[in-house]
This record gives sequence, structure tokens and C-alpha cells, in this order.
Amino acid sequence: MDFNKLFANRSTVRTYSKDRRVDETTIMKLLEAASHAPTTGNMQLYSVVLTMVPENIAALAELHLGQPAARNCQAMLTFCADTRRFGKWCSAGDTESGLDNISGDLMAVMDTCFFAQQFVTLAELHGLGTCYLGTVVYDLPGFRRSLELPEGVLPLFSVTVGYPEGDVPEPSDRLPIGAVVHKEKYHDPDNAAIARAYEFKESLPESSRFIAENGKSTLAQVYAEVRYPKQQNELISAELKKNLHI
Amino acid sequence: MDFNKLFANRSTVRTYSKDRRVDETTIMKLLEAASHAPTTGNMQLYSVVLTMVPENIAALAELHLGQPAARNCQAMLTFCADTRRFGKWCSAGDTESGLDNISGDLMAVMDTCFFAQQFVTLAELHGLGTCYLGTVVYDLPGFRRSLELPEGVLPLFSVTVGYPEGDVPEPSDRLPIGAVVHKEKYHDPDNAAIARAYEFKESLPESSRFIAENGKSTLAQVYAEVRYPKQQNELISAELKKNLHI
Repeated sequence: MDFNKLFANRSTVRTYSKDRRVDETTIMKLLEAASHAPTTGNMQLYSVVLTMVPENIAALAELHLGQPAARNCQAMLTFCADTRRFGKWCSAGDTESGLDNISGDLMAVMDTCFFAQQFVTLAELHGLGTCYLGTVVYDLPGFRRSLELPEGVLPLFSVTVGYPEGDVPEPSDRLPIGAVVHKEKYHDPDNAAIARAYEFKESLPESSRFIAENGKSTLAQVYAEVRYPKQQNELISAELKKNLHI
Repeated sequence: MDFNKLFANRSTVRTYSKDRRVDETTIMKLLEAASHAPTTGNMQLYSVVLTMVPENIAALAELHLGQPAARNCQAMLTFCADTRRFGKWCSAGDTESGLDNISGDLMAVMDTCFFAQQFVTLAELHGLGTCYLGTVVYDLPGFRRSLELPEGVLPLFSVTVGYPEGDVPEPSDRLPIGAVVHKEKYHDPDNAAIARAYEFKESLPESSRFIAENGKSTLAQVYAEVRYPKQQNELISAELKKNLHI
């Protein structure tokens, strides 16, 4: 099997079949296999809250700003950086975990991402569609309350799951790999290199459409002023700081 | 193909063949395919420094405390959270990225991990052996200097690559998946639940050996006092803070 081709052609799926149900056993098997992803010192500093009850999905979909993928999924998995379980094990073993600092936070975030990405890959290989929702950090207190997350458990993102409805979308564009890979040393891109890196993305018809729809003059402005505006990032940061050991 | 079984049986490989060479083209193809992993708003907030020149690998292996996987690998990839390239694109597009805060840092860390994990999975499917090295954060200034990383580019970990020498190791243990998955709400584990979660890990012959070798009385003490001691985590944290927007 040509895995490079398969992985290069993957795409995010936001519309799910209403007829073909996803059962809990399938999800649990995928999660079990995914838990064999690499993890810092085999500490597995993560947890996942699996939401399958329709009313609970609907409540979380509200917190996710009503995004369609959240509203029509059959399962929602909220991945959390979790140093709490490990800390409790340490207490039970007459010691202290020592992860209550930004180094511990970082290990937990990375472990969570490796695990989540392995789950997403396995789900896709299984024929399921998935979509990461980054909107958890837009309302950390809301997700904490809704999922009853205690201290030491930080929700990072949700992943929605369902069998794709209709055709799977075309893969979205990526930067030329040469813009991302630096051989032997980091080669700081000059203006010409930046222009080359983003040339293809800027040439796409949807890029022109995004610019026009948002009344901007460059695609970068759409990203930086509409999708991920500084003020919003700063609000998220203020809340994140209360949840990290900094 | 039973992907669940395949992924559940993966393991980290630290000893690589000296005869079967890994060529740059193969690595680049794997990285290109991996770059189609999900990424926050398609911003791809990461870079990777690919080290294949033997003297450069040897120099990085020193920074990695001489770990065998680093010393005998044929390629080392140092994955970096990178908001710099995106920031330059924004400047070129008459705007400001607004990612110079902990929210931007977190997006970049997560993007980097999704990309890296996708690369590791593809490399393994290709028959290569890989090992994550978390020791980058033990000497951030050293890695910055050695890889010539500018501001806005934070190295998180390296991945060593080579064809496995001899048999691939047995998969390492994981917690029962029920200890990691919480249905509908987070269920805070009590002492009995913690004991059940870690029972298998504690029962392994190597766990008893680790306890004896380190003169400890519990496995948790080996983790918290020998492998990831609080004092070391705090030193790492102090340096990390200089590299994050906090």
C-alpha cells in the first residue's frame, strides 16, 4: 500500500452520515490502539472524554460556537492534557510528581497531541471522518464545567467523529515541503523565500474569494485579522495562563 | 489490513542498521506526506531541521547527552514550533500575525506534534525505526546555537531515524484504556481506581528491577525522583519561560 499517497490525500470531514452509526466499541478499540503512540517516558499524560449521548454532544456543540461538525457528529472526543492521574499515582507511591510546572505542562500537551493524532489517523484508516475543533480554548471554563474537569486536567481540543456523508472533501493545500524543512541548519527565509512558500496558497481561487468576502487586500490579513485576530488570541492567552503552571 | 493491531504493536527503535542507508529523498517524501496532517487553520506553525551529515548528527548527539539512538541514527529531525515564517508572511501582507502570546505558542506546539507524529507513523509504516528524544528542552540554548534557530522558532524534540538493526523491540506497556477514557464526564479516580490503572505496569518484572536498581521502594518514585525529578523539571521550566510568550 502506498501510505505516502494515502496520507497526502487525507482530508478533514465535517459532514457525517445520519444512517451509518458509529458504535462505542469501535471508538474504544481505536483509542486503545492509539494509546500505543509514543509518550514521554511512558507516562501517558493525557485523558479523553468521550461524548456519545446526543444531548451532551448538543451541549458541547454550543460551546464550540455551533460549528456544523460539532452539531452533526456521532461522537465527540475532548482530549485533555492530564498530569492529575500521574500525580495521584505518585502520591499513592509515597512521592510527589514534580510536574506542576511548565515543563510538565508541555510534556502533557505533547503526549496528548501524539495520542490524538494517532487516533485520528486510525479513525481515518478505518473509514471514519474526523475534524479537530480548536474552539475548546475559546471557553475553557465552559468546557471545564460541562465535562467536570478537575485541576490538573486541561482540555486542549475536541475531535468530532462520524462516517462521511457524501464524498470526502478534496485535501486542502499545504506549503511546499521545502518551506518547512531546513537542511542541517535553519535557513531564515527572506522576502523572496516567503513569497515562494505562499505563492501556491495565494493563487488558489478560494483565497481570492476569502479576501473579497472579508474586504481585505491580502490573504495574510484574512488569517491575522479575521480568523485569528490578535485580540482574540490575547483573551485566550489570559485564560490559558490560569490553567498552565507559569 | 488490521491497522488497530499494527498500531498497537508498534514500538520505539533505538538501534539502527549501519548497512541499510536511509536516503534523503525517502525522508523528504515521508515529510511531504506527513505535512498533510491536520494543522490549526492550515497555518502549519512548524519547521523541521533535518540533520544527515554524520558530524552534525554527532554534535547533536552530544547535546542529547550521548543517547545511543542519537549516536547511531542515520537521520535526526528536530521539530520546532515555528510562528516566525507565518509572522514574516503577515508582515509581507501588510498585517501583523498576532501569535506572539501563549495562545500562539500552544497552536504552534500542537501543530508541530501532529506533524511529527504523522511523520513517525509514516516512517514506521515504511519499515523505518524511530525514537523521539525529549532532551532538546534540557539544553535549549545549545540546540538554538547548533541549529541556528532564530526567535520565534522553538525546538521541542528530535526524532531519530534508521532501519532497525536486529529484531524490533516488543511494544512497551500501556495503561488499560479504561483508565484514560472518561465517558461523558471526567471521573476523578479514587485510590482503588489508581491502583487498578497502574497494577499491570507495577507487576512487570522490569518495574521491580527499576525499583531495586535505583534503591527506591515504589515505581512511582523511580519516575518522580530519578527519571523526571522536580528540580530538573524546574530548571527546564525556567529556560522554557524565556522561550514562550508568558
